[in-house]
Amino acid sequence: MDMDPAPLNPPIGFIGLGIMGRPMAGHLRRAGYPLTVFNRTAGRADDLAAAGARVAASPAEVAAASEVVVVMVSDTPDVEHVVAGPRGVLEGIRAGSIVVDMSTVSPDLERRMAARLRARGADLVDAPVSGGDVGARAAALAIMAGGETASVERVRPILLRMGKSVTHCGPVGAGQLAKLCNQILVGVTLLGVSEAIALARAGGLDPGVMIKAVEGGAAASWQLSNLGPRILRGDFEPGFMVDLMQKDLRIVLETAGAAGAPIPATALVRQLFQTVQARGLGRKGTQIMGEVVARMGRGEGSV
Amino acid sequence: MDMDPAPLNPPIGFIGLGIMGRPMAGHLRRAGYPLTVFNRTAGRADDLAAAGARVAASPAEVAAASEVVVVMVSDTPDVEHVVAGPRGVLEGIRAGSIVVDMSTVSPDLERRMAARLRARGADLVDAPVSGGDVGARAAALAIMAGGETASVERVRPILLRMGKSVTHCGPVGAGQLAKLCNQILVGVTLLGVSEAIALARAGGLDPGVMIKAVEGGAAASWQLSNLGPRILRGDFEPGFMVDLMQKDLRIVLETAGAAGAPIPATALVRQLFQTVQARGLGRKGTQIMGEVVARMGRGEGSV
Repeated sequence: MDMDPAPLNPPIGFIGLGIMGRPMAGHLRRAGYPLTVFNRTAGRADDLAAAGARVAASPAEVAAASEVVVVMVSDTPDVEHVVAGPRGVLEGIRAGSIVVDMSTVSPDLERRMAARLRARGADLVDAPVSGGDVGARAAALAIMAGGETASVERVRPILLRMGKSVTHCGPVGAGQLAKLCNQILVGVTLLGVSEAIALARAGGLDPGVMIKAVEGGAAASWQLSNLGPRILRGDFEPGFMVDLMQKDLRIVLETAGAAGAPIPATALVRQLFQTVQARGLGRKGTQIMGEVVARMGRGEGSV
Repeated sequence: MDMDPAPLNPPIGFIGLGIMGRPMAGHLRRAGYPLTVFNRTAGRADDLAAAGARVAASPAEVAAASEVVVVMVSDTPDVEHVVAGPRGVLEGIRAGSIVVDMSTVSPDLERRMAARLRARGADLVDAPVSGGDVGARAAALAIMAGGETASVERVRPILLRMGKSVTHCGPVGAGQLAKLCNQILVGVTLLGVSEAIALARAGGLDPGVMIKAVEGGAAASWQLSNLGPRILRGDFEPGFMVDLMQKDLRIVLETAGAAGAPIPATALVRQLFQTVQARGLGRKGTQIMGEVVARMGRGEGSV
């Protein structure tokens, strides 16, 4: 009598097939995982269906078919809705399953959702990412995970199909906190880069020469070396969109406010990005901050 | 009849033997340059005198004895005084000589001093540095030069005895502008690092884990990887002193103001460092910004 091989590839559910979720789900399907997907707008599942994924009618149906349920949606209310709303994950989840929330949402929501899942015998790992849609397509995301060690280790092989690294940051919510810290660093450093470029331009110093002169020392940053040259070329394609950054920074400021941690430079970054959104340019890349700062002064911007 | 060998090592003057200037002058003396030095406090020249340097009684006397006059003093008025004051460089300078100002001062002062030196047939190269006293002792400074190409190239071999790189940034004043941009980047990035650490601590995320999770991506910076761990250890030894940073940021804000370039994050950095100076801690390293931000919130600082 033959024995079935051990089920190396547990059935996975994937909820949220947007600009990030669709390529991420594709990596899982190509790795051979049985895949059940759901998206609010059903048409976005067509190519995954053609590749063999099953398309479910609700998050509850996804959860009922899966041992690991990945959620990749836009914002805190979206996660709350697909997990705890009508026909949500909580209605279908099986004991022993794990929800992996890869959205960027508030750490507090993750703790509340984890409590409700544990009441059903399931668990939650928060696993937000950095790397944007480019990283999602290339399976090169940096993944920051929060949760029980056993749960994080159980889903690590799955996460590594979508990213190049998984850092276990602490208990549930710690992944989100690390992601929020990442966004502080990205935003404030970019504002510094924009102010340095503005001073160089206003003072008559070639800003490209300035970047070359300083990027090897204590002024060095990824933002300076990667987004600085795009600012100088007037290339404002995303990259990472201002609208998404603003959503993340709203969560950063809410979380810091609740924790009693003033973060004035981050608040300034969010205010300055609001001028971009007010002009209808929220779908440009964050490097448009270079224009925001330039336009505050006498210098002319290029947008 | 024997001919003298070509004078490979022109006589150099060095004005300003402080924490930076003394080791820099020492590198020049050890490289074999005939050296004439001046310092307001004469005792600081003793070890250079013992190594064969001549100690002059005034900047004018230094200039009269030298083809290249290096100036390394604290602030804009100090440069103005040693160059244009009584018994200053302008009174002794020889036609064909070059003044190399390695102090961090306003680009505008350099342009005015250059005009006055050119009226005497001499020239000026501004060549501020980054790398601090550690870089000065190790001859590892990054040097940002502004001036005529011929003059910059003539002094480049001398500068390379004190630094690891010389970037020619443009005409007179361009070196100072690059240095001021460097200080914007250093200061604003450090504020972002401090806010990220504050949120991690307030939210219960190990800030060391946070740094490891994000320093490989778009949040990467020299400040995060080098000063972040010092903030976590409560190690506030300089590095680069707050008092000197504040002097530099004052020049940054004056220069940006004159050029009509608003730089609000840099202004915020300077305001926050004022709280350090108000507590008598201006001789600590700039990474004490981590404490400033922590103390604004509920979290307890360690200083």
